[in-house]
Amino acid sequence: MKVLDHLLPKPVTVTPRSGVLRITPTFTLGLKGDPGKRTLTGASRFLARLAGRTGIFLANPKPLVAPLPNDCSLVVRYQRPGNLALNEDESYQIEIGSNQAFLHAETDLGVLRGFETILQLLTADENGPFFPAVDITDEPRFPWRGLLMDCARHFQPLEVIKRNLDGMAAVKLNVLHWHLTDDQAFRVESKVFPRLHQDGTDGEYYTQEQIREIIAYADLRGIRVVPEFDLPGHTSSWVLGYPELASAPGPYHPETGFGVKDTVVNPAREETYAFLEAFFQEMAALFPDTYIHIGGDENNGKQWLANPEIQGFMRANNLSDPHSLQAYFNRRLHAILTKLNKKMVGWDEILDPDLPASTIVIQAWRNKESLWQAAKMGYKGILSHGYYLDLMQPTALHYQNDPLAEADQLTAEEQQLILGGEAAMWTEFISPETIDARIWPRAAAIAERLWSPAAHCTLEGLDDRLAMVSLRLEELGLTHIKNYPMMLRRLCGSMEIDALKTLVDLCEPVKNYERTIQCPEATIYSPLTRVVDAAPAEAQTARKFHKLVRAFLSTLEPDPKASAMSDKYENLHRAIKAQLSLWQQNHAALEPVIQSAPLLTEIQSLSADLARIAGLGLDLLTFWDKWQNNEPLNLDSAFYQKQKTAFAAAAKPRGQVELVVTGAIAELVEALWQMMMGDQSPPPSNATTEEEAI
Amino acid sequence: MKVLDHLLPKPVTVTPRSGVLRITPTFTLGLKGDPGKRTLTGASRFLARLAGRTGIFLANPKPLVAPLPNDCSLVVRYQRPGNLALNEDESYQIEIGSNQAFLHAETDLGVLRGFETILQLLTADENGPFFPAVDITDEPRFPWRGLLMDCARHFQPLEVIKRNLDGMAAVKLNVLHWHLTDDQAFRVESKVFPRLHQDGTDGEYYTQEQIREIIAYADLRGIRVVPEFDLPGHTSSWVLGYPELASAPGPYHPETGFGVKDTVVNPAREETYAFLEAFFQEMAALFPDTYIHIGGDENNGKQWLANPEIQGFMRANNLSDPHSLQAYFNRRLHAILTKLNKKMVGWDEILDPDLPASTIVIQAWRNKESLWQAAKMGYKGILSHGYYLDLMQPTALHYQNDPLAEADQLTAEEQQLILGGEAAMWTEFISPETIDARIWPRAAAIAERLWSPAAHCTLEGLDDRLAMVSLRLEELGLTHIKNYPMMLRRLCGSMEIDALKTLVDLCEPVKNYERTIQCPEATIYSPLTRVVDAAPAEAQTARKFHKLVRAFLSTLEPDPKASAMSDKYENLHRAIKAQLSLWQQNHAALEPVIQSAPLLTEIQSLSADLARIAGLGLDLLTFWDKWQNNEPLNLDSAFYQKQKTAFAAAAKPRGQVELVVTGAIAELVEALWQMMMGDQSPPPSNATTEEEAI
Repeated sequence: MKVLDHLLPKPVTVTPRSGVLRITPTFTLGLKGDPGKRTLTGASRFLARLAGRTGIFLANPKPLVAPLPNDCSLVVRYQRPGNLALNEDESYQIEIGSNQAFLHAETDLGVLRGFETILQLLTADENGPFFPAVDITDEPRFPWRGLLMDCARHFQPLEVIKRNLDGMAAVKLNVLHWHLTDDQAFRVESKVFPRLHQDGTDGEYYTQEQIREIIAYADLRGIRVVPEFDLPGHTSSWVLGYPELASAPGPYHPETGFGVKDTVVNPAREETYAFLEAFFQEMAALFPDTYIHIGGDENNGKQWLANPEIQGFMRANNLSDPHSLQAYFNRRLHAILTKLNKKMVGWDEILDPDLPASTIVIQAWRNKESLWQAAKMGYKGILSHGYYLDLMQPTALHYQNDPLAEADQLTAEEQQLILGGEAAMWTEFISPETIDARIWPRAAAIAERLWSPAAHCTLEGLDDRLAMVSLRLEELGLTHIKNYPMMLRRLCGSMEIDALKTLVDLCEPVKNYERTIQCPEATIYSPLTRVVDAAPAEAQTARKFHKLVRAFLSTLEPDPKASAMSDKYENLHRAIKAQLSLWQQNHAALEPVIQSAPLLTEIQSLSADLARIAGLGLDLLTFWDKWQNNEPLNLDSAFYQKQKTAFAAAAKPRGQVELVVTGAIAELVEALWQMMMGDQSPPPSNATTEEEAI
Repeated sequence: MKVLDHLLPKPVTVTPRSGVLRITPTFTLGLKGDPGKRTLTGASRFLARLAGRTGIFLANPKPLVAPLPNDCSLVVRYQRPGNLALNEDESYQIEIGSNQAFLHAETDLGVLRGFETILQLLTADENGPFFPAVDITDEPRFPWRGLLMDCARHFQPLEVIKRNLDGMAAVKLNVLHWHLTDDQAFRVESKVFPRLHQDGTDGEYYTQEQIREIIAYADLRGIRVVPEFDLPGHTSSWVLGYPELASAPGPYHPETGFGVKDTVVNPAREETYAFLEAFFQEMAALFPDTYIHIGGDENNGKQWLANPEIQGFMRANNLSDPHSLQAYFNRRLHAILTKLNKKMVGWDEILDPDLPASTIVIQAWRNKESLWQAAKMGYKGILSHGYYLDLMQPTALHYQNDPLAEADQLTAEEQQLILGGEAAMWTEFISPETIDARIWPRAAAIAERLWSPAAHCTLEGLDDRLAMVSLRLEELGLTHIKNYPMMLRRLCGSMEIDALKTLVDLCEPVKNYERTIQCPEATIYSPLTRVVDAAPAEAQTARKFHKLVRAFLSTLEPDPKASAMSDKYENLHRAIKAQLSLWQQNHAALEPVIQSAPLLTEIQSLSADLARIAGLGLDLLTFWDKWQNNEPLNLDSAFYQKQKTAFAAAAKPRGQVELVVTGAIAELVEALWQMMMGDQSPPPSNATTEEEAI
């Protein structure tokens, strides 16, 4: 049953049975016992999605409740309302037979997880929609499976958060890490200190009523909301309204640029702690989760070292360096949170033996070692290193990043301290228009890594499953697929986007922190409507071409001259040639568009480079055909030099965009050249981009 | 300057000058005097959209304020803050020269209108983006230019309303008519009568804070918000929590179906008016606009006639029939609103000489005559008849519907009472996913009709201007273009939508109230993810083919045999043949998709019919070619019968979808048949669908 291979995240056990459960207008969903709001609303959403995908007019579009008829199509039962907190039971069991299906769970959280699995089982044949008969048992490997959304750098409206909460629920993520404050903005309404959000934003912040709306929305989907108030660094937005919190005299202006700033809260004044206690008291009442994230990252200590009062405080308290002072600050914060019955999460910089281990979670972002180090020191930890979605890394890299891999240096007990991980969506260069495409479907791969047994997590078939999940995520309003052509239309100023799409399908944004480095003038007001913003994080067309090239090259073994006789060789040869021809001709089609599209000027030469290297690829194929026919080649070092120059040029990013197909074409050219020319000249392509073909 | 031809709505005067104003990173927008929040935020949005479309990193991404430098690129000045009310000044003047541009207006509302015009002027050439030098003076023809959004039948989340407010502002509409209550739901939080929204919805309603959020959002865009509380009919949702309001004993259950219901408020009880006074007191405080809409439509009077108490009340008050009783009720409502300093809007059913004319606006929906009748009786009026977007009528019909056309029976003074009109988006069959495509771009044509001088409103070039506006509306988050392929992906369960798109591009939903008639089982829970929901309101591909057919047929005059020699004939012949061939082959491509896509089953035979009639079109072209070569035809009445049957079948809606290209193909076939066969048989195609090719 093919649909069973499409489940994501993969359940613990999946046991196919024979038969199918047909879905007809009489399909009913029955809730046993006394259903709570989470189950009732979850069941209603389940039925609406079922109707939406099948087109069936359900006679009972709402769940039935006790007293239930005996013949409900899907019977749901759970033991108790889940406590939306770390380590709550999320397990569930599904039994689907030809006449009836059952979903059982310990808690209503498990019911919600089970609903998502059942919806992934929905399929159809010529007789209509059905669920395959199957038994499934499932539970998560890690209890903390999060997505960080940075709503400080670029404000994300409520509906962006809501649709992403729906997306999270669909792949069984259970923590929204809401990064609410940073240098660039303070996004929470504070009634106690209103200048925080008033002076700390342009007017874009979440009211407390909106915060409660999001928390309620997340709760109904079984998702915890952990707010982050980043301290003591990343606080430029705090000191605009409350300069007395700062460690330097100011004056302060709104921070619109990116990178690590010097602004840091003054830990030497008691008034700072009084302020923070009053502030956290307000926030502790607003956010029901046990955990509050206090940030703690990237404090460069400069303002502390430059402030005589703070220096005196350090001496008086035997705090030898900024790290010790920050540890002191964290202990004070920890005491405040403890008083408020809250536990503390912080980035790995906060790791310090003087902090009590029992009520702290360390979030490892700089490296994985800090996670293990924390565990060895007895701290709970979650992994984010290797899960940063803004770095535009390939899905496979995230997917293969197991929190417990290479952790065998840890005892079993220490491994228990590793609670899971969080995908992180930082938004220096992300708008509400682009955020979904940067999160999905890559976060779904991370979700599987954190939910499914490690042994289930193999790359085999992952692409297909992600493609299926990606399509299903659209029904939740996520824009990760549909905003791509929309952005291309704006770039072209027209509905005619074919030529641009042919190019951008082969491009990716520069990786890691290259965009910040190459574009230091960027601010929160810079346009995020450029080619780099539209380009896919992972260019599937380029990856497919790379596979084609490798398949073709593999036909050339062991005897290149004999390869020409196989059908496989001919087909691959033809496919590569067709692709290269399209790309060679594309620039001529795109050039007139660029003439009146100012946003495309920055990738004009990239488009020309694609035509050039595609042309070189075609040239090499022509030489190759001649070589196989024992015709003279006329290949010399001038041609070699031309190649080398072209590939080197094509590999250079323009407008923070990389033409990632360069590597695959270079690989083809290099291999053919080597086979034809042997040692007569060095291979041409030391110009391969950092291209990821896995 | 081509861009000047793309303005929509067309300004009163547009005077091109020579030169262009280039947009560079040093572009600045300066606000003279003491700018208010409307201008400041409007200017910021202007600059963000300018940056977004050009990709330029503006050195000043925010407007400059006094003291202004002399060389601001765009200088904005206005006299006074506008009063966001009927008849406020919205005029503006634009002067763009090669070095500087000026936007002057009496009020900040005029400034907002001017910003939209300037953004429509943005264009580019190979030297980058620019505004053409031009002088523009502009003001609206009608002061009331609205869009009704029905948020009762299907709840529309805040972001749907917000993005549509942005769309309205872009085309200078200035009234959101917010249809908040109806039989199916009561969507406003009432703190005075909380069972209204609690019992009257599934939990989907607007809190008062959210209402204020929308009103503030609209205000910043110069848009009034007129709420509608539909009374005394359309009140099934009111009586769920407050059955004492009803005219029949009940019991009442949530109303999930559509059509006119019997439920009506009891006008014979004084408690009803006490309730309504308290309710409107709360709503009058919540909604700042002078006008409140009290509905008044489609009361069938049945419950009144069946209630002895109400009958007694009618006799006692000399109210001879339900209309008189409703007039009495309206007078009472009017007195309540007057006490609250509010004026009343109502649907044309409320027209009654006993209502005071000065404080009432009549909204004509049943016909245009009621508008004129109202004006003759001294009532102000707005037109909605002919502007119902849910009826899936063609743009041209809406566009040519002038509120004052044929109104010459009215005196000039009476004509002054006609304030404008409103496009109406009723949502029985509309979800948040489909609403934008049903509003845009057709509402933009209505917006031009209501803004621009009547003489400017010609169909010539309208399609091009709408296409341009439609593209620009996407930057506001509107989903009218991008949700179409998304919905096709869901229908196919796949990214491969080409075959389905080829078919659905030629389809439209059934017109007028046919969907309700053909699908009486529909409820608010029925899926809105079917082909009928994806199909364009106006199938442009079918319209283009119709034009092609007519152009081809026009080449056959006066001597069909000679036509074969012209290039034009050959090109059109080839184009039609290519199109018909594609359509003939499409069913074979779509058939395997349908096998596993339950949502497509209902249009399976439609797809087959397209193949069949396209094949007949190709057959006729082949016969035609033979006929021109004087070859024998072998055409007989059996072939004619086959045609007739095929076109009749193709013209029948399936799944509430019409294959609107049927008419164009039939027209081709019929014309060729007539020319070849003359009077030998009747023409085959009395089966033309109601297809709109203008």
